Amino acid sequence: MVFPNLKINHERLHADFEQLSQIGLTADNGICRMALSREDLEARAWFADRIEEAGFLVHDDDAGNLSGILLCDNPKAKTLLIGSHLDTVQNAGRYDGAVGVLAALESLRTINEAGLKLPVHLEVIDFTDDEGAWQPMFGSLSLTGRLPKNYLRDANGEMSSFRAALVRAGINPEHVHRARRSPADLAGYIEVHIEQGWRLERSQVNIGVVTGIVGRSSYLFTFHGQAGHSGTTSMWERKDALQGAALFVTRAHELVRNSYPEGVINCGNVEVKPGTRTIIPSEVRVTVECRHVKQTLLEEMERALLDLAHECAQACYLTVMSDRFGHIATAMMSDSVIEAIEKACEQLDVTYTRLASYASHNAQVMSTFTESGMLFIPSVNGISHNPAEFSEWEDVVRGTNVLMHAILNLALR
Amino acid sequence: MVFPNLKINHERLHADFEQLSQIGLTADNGICRMALSREDLEARAWFADRIEEAGFLVHDDDAGNLSGILLCDNPKAKTLLIGSHLDTVQNAGRYDGAVGVLAALESLRTINEAGLKLPVHLEVIDFTDDEGAWQPMFGSLSLTGRLPKNYLRDANGEMSSFRAALVRAGINPEHVHRARRSPADLAGYIEVHIEQGWRLERSQVNIGVVTGIVGRSSYLFTFHGQAGHSGTTSMWERKDALQGAALFVTRAHELVRNSYPEGVINCGNVEVKPGTRTIIPSEVRVTVECRHVKQTLLEEMERALLDLAHECAQACYLTVMSDRFGHIATAMMSDSVIEAIEKACEQLDVTYTRLASYASHNAQVMSTFTESGMLFIPSVNGISHNPAEFSEWEDVVRGTNVLMHAILNLALR
Repeated sequence: MVFPNLKINHERLHADFEQLSQIGLTADNGICRMALSREDLEARAWFADRIEEAGFLVHDDDAGNLSGILLCDNPKAKTLLIGSHLDTVQNAGRYDGAVGVLAALESLRTINEAGLKLPVHLEVIDFTDDEGAWQPMFGSLSLTGRLPKNYLRDANGEMSSFRAALVRAGINPEHVHRARRSPADLAGYIEVHIEQGWRLERSQVNIGVVTGIVGRSSYLFTFHGQAGHSGTTSMWERKDALQGAALFVTRAHELVRNSYPEGVINCGNVEVKPGTRTIIPSEVRVTVECRHVKQTLLEEMERALLDLAHECAQACYLTVMSDRFGHIATAMMSDSVIEAIEKACEQLDVTYTRLASYASHNAQVMSTFTESGMLFIPSVNGISHNPAEFSEWEDVVRGTNVLMHAILNLALR
Repeated sequence: MVFPNLKINHERLHADFEQLSQIGLTADNGICRMALSREDLEARAWFADRIEEAGFLVHDDDAGNLSGILLCDNPKAKTLLIGSHLDTVQNAGRYDGAVGVLAALESLRTINEAGLKLPVHLEVIDFTDDEGAWQPMFGSLSLTGRLPKNYLRDANGEMSSFRAALVRAGINPEHVHRARRSPADLAGYIEVHIEQGWRLERSQVNIGVVTGIVGRSSYLFTFHGQAGHSGTTSMWERKDALQGAALFVTRAHELVRNSYPEGVINCGNVEVKPGTRTIIPSEVRVTVECRHVKQTLLEEMERALLDLAHECAQACYLTVMSDRFGHIATAMMSDSVIEAIEKACEQLDVTYTRLASYASHNAQVMSTFTESGMLFIPSVNGISHNPAEFSEWEDVVRGTNVLMHAILNLALR
C-alpha cells in the first residue's frame, strides 16, 4: 500500500503554528516556555484541546508527558510514538520542538481523515522538559525508566523547587516512576526537528536523515594556584590559576579542531576566585562540554582533554581537578526507521542526505528502548535557541509530509 | 645635631602591636578591618586612646583621617606628616598599614620623651580607607583635595551605601571637602611599610628606600561574539567570545614578560555571558590591571595591550571594547626624603637599597602635594593581603628606628 497523493493539511498546520507561537511570546519576539512554567502549561492545555478537537484520546502519564492517541482496531497492537517537545529554552525561537509536535499531530489527523486502517496505534507525544529547565529529557528518561529510583527523593533539599514545580503542574513526584512503559508495547519512535545547523541549507538538500546522535560529557575543570598581591609578585613567579585556565581553553579548541574533526567542545563558563583586579587568581573553574558522534572517539577525546588540562596546569605551576558531572552516550538510529524515512523521501520526490545530530534529542533516550529515528528540516543560517531561529514554511510542510509517509511506511512494513 | 643612641621603646611598640592585632581578628587568624567597619572604628578608638595617653593632641579631619599631633613651640611652624593606615583588606595580615601607624606613634613618643625641640610640628596620621573598601586612598585624596567636588553627590544612588558608612562613622559627606589642607602648611610626608615582595629578603638587605611608586591603570575589556548552539555550530565557524579573551589573557602576560620587564599586569576577573555549557559565549569581560614604574612606559604598555586585544579579537572574528576605569600616575619620591632615610640608615649602621614600590600607597597621593618618601622593611616570603603575612619583629623595630631618625633628619635639615 502506497499513498503518494496523501498530503497533510498545510493550512491547518500553519494555523496551529501561529497559535502556538503566541504562547510565551516575549517582548523581543522570542519564545519563553520553560518546562513546567505557566507558559509551558498553557501550551499543553492548548495542545490537549487540539487533540480532543481531532477526536483522539488525550493521555498524560505520571511524568507529565502529554499524548494524543489514535487507536487502531486491535487493542493488543503496539504503539508507534511520534513526538517532540513544547517546552523551550529561555529566549528561544518558534520552531525547536514545536514543529515536531505539530507535525506529528497533523500527520495523525491526516491519516485519520483518510480512513486508513493501520495495524498499530499512533501516539503523538509532548515530552516533559526536553530542554532541561529542571532535568534535560525528563519525560523520555521517565518513560524509559532511566531516572534513578531515588532521583526525586529530597534528602538534601536540592530537588525541592523541581518537586514544587511538578506538583504545581499536577505531577506527583512520588509517582513519576509509574510513567515507565514496556518496550514490548512499542512499535518504534520517530521525530521531526529543525536541524539547528547549516549543513542542509548549504548543500541545498530538503531532508536530513539522522544516523546517530552525539554523545555528550560535561566537565568542570578547577585550576588551583595561589592568591597574591597583583603588584608586588614578580610576573615570573606567579601561580596564576587564570593563566592555566586560559591556556587550556585556547589549546583545547586547537586539539579538537586538529585531531577530532567529528568532535565539538564548548567552554561555556569561567569563574575566577577571588575575582578582583588587585589579587592574582587563586582558583579558576572552567565548564567544558564535549560531544562526538562516535562513542569510542568521544572517550578518547575526553582523555586527551584531561591530559591537556594537567599539561597546562603544570606549565603554569598549578594543580587541576576534573569532575565529569554529566554524560549521555552516543545513540545510533534504527536502520528500519532510517529506511522508512528515506523511502518516504523517495515516494515524495524529496532530496535527502544522511547526517549525524550534534544536538541531543529525546530520540537519543528512546533509542535505548525501541527502534528510533529522526529527520531534520533545514534551519536558515543554522541559528537556534534564539528568537532569530527560522525555517522556511515550505520546508516545515515538506518535513511533515515526509514524517507522515515515514509513519505509514513503519506502520505497514 | 645627631642622636645615634636614641632608640625607640621596642617593648611598648610590641605591646601596641599585640593589642591592635586583636581588633578584627578572624577565626583563621587573619585580620578584617575593612574601612569604616565596626572593627576599623574600634581600631581608631583604640588608637585615639594611645594618642591621648602619649599626651599628644587628638585630631580628626572631615574625611575621618585620625591624627596625633606633637606641637612644637612655634605655632606658625610647618607640619611633618608621618602615617599609614589602620584599615585592611578582607582576610588580611597584621602588618600592612598597622606597622606604619604604630611606628610613627612610637617615633613621636620617643622624640617627645627625649625632650628634643624640633622646628616643625610632628603629626602621626591614620588615613581613611587606604585599601579601598569604598574608595582607595580616600583619606589622602581628601586631604590633598584630589577628589572631584561632586564625588559624593548621589544623583544616581551609587554612593548611597558609602555615604551611609561615612555617616555611621561620624563623617558628614557634605563636609569631606573641608579636609583639604594647604601644601604650604606641610614640611613633608614619610611612611614606613612592609615591602609586600621578596626583594629585600632575597638580597638580605634591611631597609628598602623607595624611589618611586608604580602607576596603575585598570581596564575592562569586553569581547563580543555570537551566541550559538554548542553542538550544532561548526568548530570552524564560531564567534566564541571566550576564545578571544583566553588568547588575550595568555598573550598579554607574554607581552609584558617579554617586553616590559619593569611592568606587571594582572587579569583578575573574567565574566562569561550567557555562561552555560550548552551555549557558545557571546560576551566575555576581562578585568586587567597594569602597573609600571615609569609613566611613559606604563602608557606604552597600555597601548600595546589595547592593540593586542584588538588583534586577539580579530583572530577569533570578534569585536572588543575597552574601558579604562581607573588610573593613578606613577609617583617619584622626593630626593630630600630619600636622603633623610639613607642618612638614618647610615647613622644606625643598617643596610639599605633603593627600589621601586609595585604597590600603591598614600605616599603616591601625598607626593603630588608635599615632599614625600617611604621606607620598606622585609616581608617574609613576600606574602601580603593574607593571614600568612609576616615580618620578623627585629625588622619592625629596625624600621621604626630608621623612621624616627629619618624624621629627625628631615625636621632638622
